Amino acid sequence: MNDSVGLVKTEYADFDVELRLESGRLLGPLTIAFERYGQLNAAKDNVILVTHAWTGDAHAAGVHDEEDRKPGWWDNMIGPGKVFDTDKYFVLCSNVIGSCKGSTGPTSIDPKTGRPYRLKFPSLMVRDMVRAQKLLIDHLGITSIHAVVGGSMGAMQAIEWAIHYPEMIRAIVPIAGTGRTSPMAIALNALARQAIFNDPLWKKGNYRPEHPPADGLALARAVGHISFLSDASMWLKFGRRFSVRDGMFDFFGKFEIERYLDYNGGNFVDRFDTNSFLYLAKALDLYDVAWNFDSLSEALDRLNCPSLWFAFTSDWLYTPQQTQEVVDELRRLNKPVDYHLIESDYGHDSFLVEPEKFIPILQTFLAEVPRSA
Amino acid sequence: MNDSVGLVKTEYADFDVELRLESGRLLGPLTIAFERYGQLNAAKDNVILVTHAWTGDAHAAGVHDEEDRKPGWWDNMIGPGKVFDTDKYFVLCSNVIGSCKGSTGPTSIDPKTGRPYRLKFPSLMVRDMVRAQKLLIDHLGITSIHAVVGGSMGAMQAIEWAIHYPEMIRAIVPIAGTGRTSPMAIALNALARQAIFNDPLWKKGNYRPEHPPADGLALARAVGHISFLSDASMWLKFGRRFSVRDGMFDFFGKFEIERYLDYNGGNFVDRFDTNSFLYLAKALDLYDVAWNFDSLSEALDRLNCPSLWFAFTSDWLYTPQQTQEVVDELRRLNKPVDYHLIESDYGHDSFLVEPEKFIPILQTFLAEVPRSA
Repeated sequence: MNDSVGLVKTEYADFDVELRLESGRLLGPLTIAFERYGQLNAAKDNVILVTHAWTGDAHAAGVHDEEDRKPGWWDNMIGPGKVFDTDKYFVLCSNVIGSCKGSTGPTSIDPKTGRPYRLKFPSLMVRDMVRAQKLLIDHLGITSIHAVVGGSMGAMQAIEWAIHYPEMIRAIVPIAGTGRTSPMAIALNALARQAIFNDPLWKKGNYRPEHPPADGLALARAVGHISFLSDASMWLKFGRRFSVRDGMFDFFGKFEIERYLDYNGGNFVDRFDTNSFLYLAKALDLYDVAWNFDSLSEALDRLNCPSLWFAFTSDWLYTPQQTQEVVDELRRLNKPVDYHLIESDYGHDSFLVEPEKFIPILQTFLAEVPRSA
Repeated sequence: MNDSVGLVKTEYADFDVELRLESGRLLGPLTIAFERYGQLNAAKDNVILVTHAWTGDAHAAGVHDEEDRKPGWWDNMIGPGKVFDTDKYFVLCSNVIGSCKGSTGPTSIDPKTGRPYRLKFPSLMVRDMVRAQKLLIDHLGITSIHAVVGGSMGAMQAIEWAIHYPEMIRAIVPIAGTGRTSPMAIALNALARQAIFNDPLWKKGNYRPEHPPADGLALARAVGHISFLSDASMWLKFGRRFSVRDGMFDFFGKFEIERYLDYNGGNFVDRFDTNSFLYLAKALDLYDVAWNFDSLSEALDRLNCPSLWFAFTSDWLYTPQQTQEVVDELRRLNKPVDYHLIESDYGHDSFLVEPEKFIPILQTFLAEVPRSA
C-alpha cells in the first residue's frame, strides 16, 4: 500500500489551562488527543486540519499496528498522492473535547473530585471544541492553516475556525454541514436521548463503564443511522427483504434493515461512551453559527478566506438548503465562495461513501489556496 | 353546530366465525366496533366507507356525549353539507382488527385460554383487516359501496377493498398512501418497536394493563410523530426555540420540539395499548399491494372502479413517489385514475391538517361516481 501513511500513533498534549466555555463555565486542565501525517514545512504553512464528526476520533489515517483490519476513518483521503497529499501537506486531526477518544470529556477525571466527570461535565458548543483545538495548534507552533476540512460536525468546526480565527485560516471546506441544526435534526437527537434516559442502566449517567446502558445506546445509535441514510440508499441496500432467519408472520421477525440497525447499534456500544454521546448530541443541537452574534450576516462577515462547500442531494439531516442558506449569505457579503451540490443516494453519509464525487473539485481548490493569509 | 352529526354511539357486531388470515392462521370469533352517520337508502347504495389510520378508531364524527370536548377524528369531513354529506350518504367507519378500540385485538379474550391474547394474537396484514370489515358490510346488508376513503393505513385498506372485492366497490380515494411501505418507513417502525422492547415493563407483552411500558410506548409514539411531521412544519411550529423553563446549557434542558414530543408521547400511553400498537406497526411494515400476486400489475388489474389519489409534497413517510408508482401502473393498465399532488408543509399529517386543499376535488369526484358497479 504505497498510498498509505502506514503505522501511526495517537499522541496526547496536556494543557494546564482553564478554558472559559460559551456557557461561562471553566474547563481544565485539558488533554487533546491528536494524530499527524506528513511533515510540517519550515514555514509551518502547509497544514491541513481535518475535523471529525460526532463519533469520530483523531485516528483519521493509517493503522495503529500491522494487524489492524481497519485504517483511520478518512484513510481514502489522506496519504501520499491522495487529495490530502502527505508528501506535500502536514495533515492534523484531533479529537474534540467532550468525546471519549482521548481528549477531555465526561469519562475524564474531574480534578475537583478525583472521579470521572460524568454529568458534572459542562455543556459544550462546537465553538468550545474549536477553542480547545486552538491550544493544540499553538502548541505545535502553527500560525497559518492552509485549510480546515470536515464533514457534518467537522463542517461546523471548519466554519467556527474561519469565523473566530480569521487571521490564521487560509481556506475552509465544510462538507454536508449546516449553519444551524434544524428542529428535525434536534427531534431525532431527542429520540436518541430519550432512548438512553429510558434505559434503567443509564442511572442518570452514573452507570459503571463495564455496564453501560447498552440497549438504550444501541437504539440511540440506530436513530442516528437512519438519519445518516436515505430512502434511496435503503432501497439499494435492503429493499423490503425479510430476514431469511425469520418467518414473515413471526411477531419478532425482522426485515433486513432492522437486522442492520440492530447489528450496528450493538457494535457501537463497545466503542463509544454513552455520556460522551449525549454531550456531543447536545453540542450539535446547540450549534448555530450566529450564536452570540447579532445575525448570521454579522457572524459570516468575519470570515476572511475562500470557502468550498459540498452538500448532497439525498441528505435529509443537514439538507442542501441549509448549506445554501449560508452560501447565499456569504455571496451577499461578497466573500469568495464555491458551492457544489453533489448527486448522491447515500444521504448524510455520502461524504464518506462517495468521496470520489467531490475529490477532484477539492483537489483543485486546495492547490489554489493563497500561500499567505 | 348545524353541520355536526351530533350525538353518536359506537356499536359492536359479533361474528361467530373463524377468519382465515394471510398467515394461514384462524382468528375468531370476531367483534367489529363501528359507527354510522346518515341513513342507508332503500337501494342500499349510498355508502361511504371511511377507513382509519394506525391509531384511529370507529369514532370518526360527532360526539359521544354533550360534554365531549373533541369530536370524532374526521369530524370536519363528515356531517350535513360536508364533503361526506350525511344528508345524502350513509357514512360508515369501523375499527380495524388488531386495534384496541373495540374490535378484536391483542387485548381481547382468547377463547382457547379465557385470557387476553397478548402475543398469542396472530400477525395481521391490512388485507386481513379488510376481510374482517367485509363481515360487517355483509351483516348490514350492503352490496355496493359508493366509495372507500381513507388516509395512510386507511388508504391501504381502500386499495385492498378495490382489489379483493371489485364487484362491490364503485370508487376508492386513497390519501397519503403507498403501494408498499419503504425500508425507511420500516426502519422508523423498527425504532418504535425497539423502544418498547427495551422497556423492562414490556415483559414480552405480558405487562399488566394498569402498568404498561409507558416510557417505551411514549418514545415509540415520538418516532411516529417525527415521521408524520416535516422539517418545514417543525420550523413553522417550533423553530429552534428553547424551552423557557430550561437553561440552554442545562444537561436536561429541552428544545420546544422535544417538549412537544414528550407531551404527546405521554398522552398517547393513556389511550392506546402497547401490543396493539406493535401488531398494527407490523401490518404496516408487511403491507404490499402485490402480496400473493405475481406482480403489482396483476394486483392492480383487478381494480374495477375509478380511483382518486392524493399525495402531499412534504410527506417523507409515504412519499408522493410511492403513490405515483401505483398511479403510473394503473394508467398503464388503462384504469380510470385521477392523481393530485397537493402542496403542503405538514408532512404525512397534511391529510388531517389541511383537508381544505383537497376537499373540492374530492367533492366533485364523489358526485361523479357511477350509481351502479
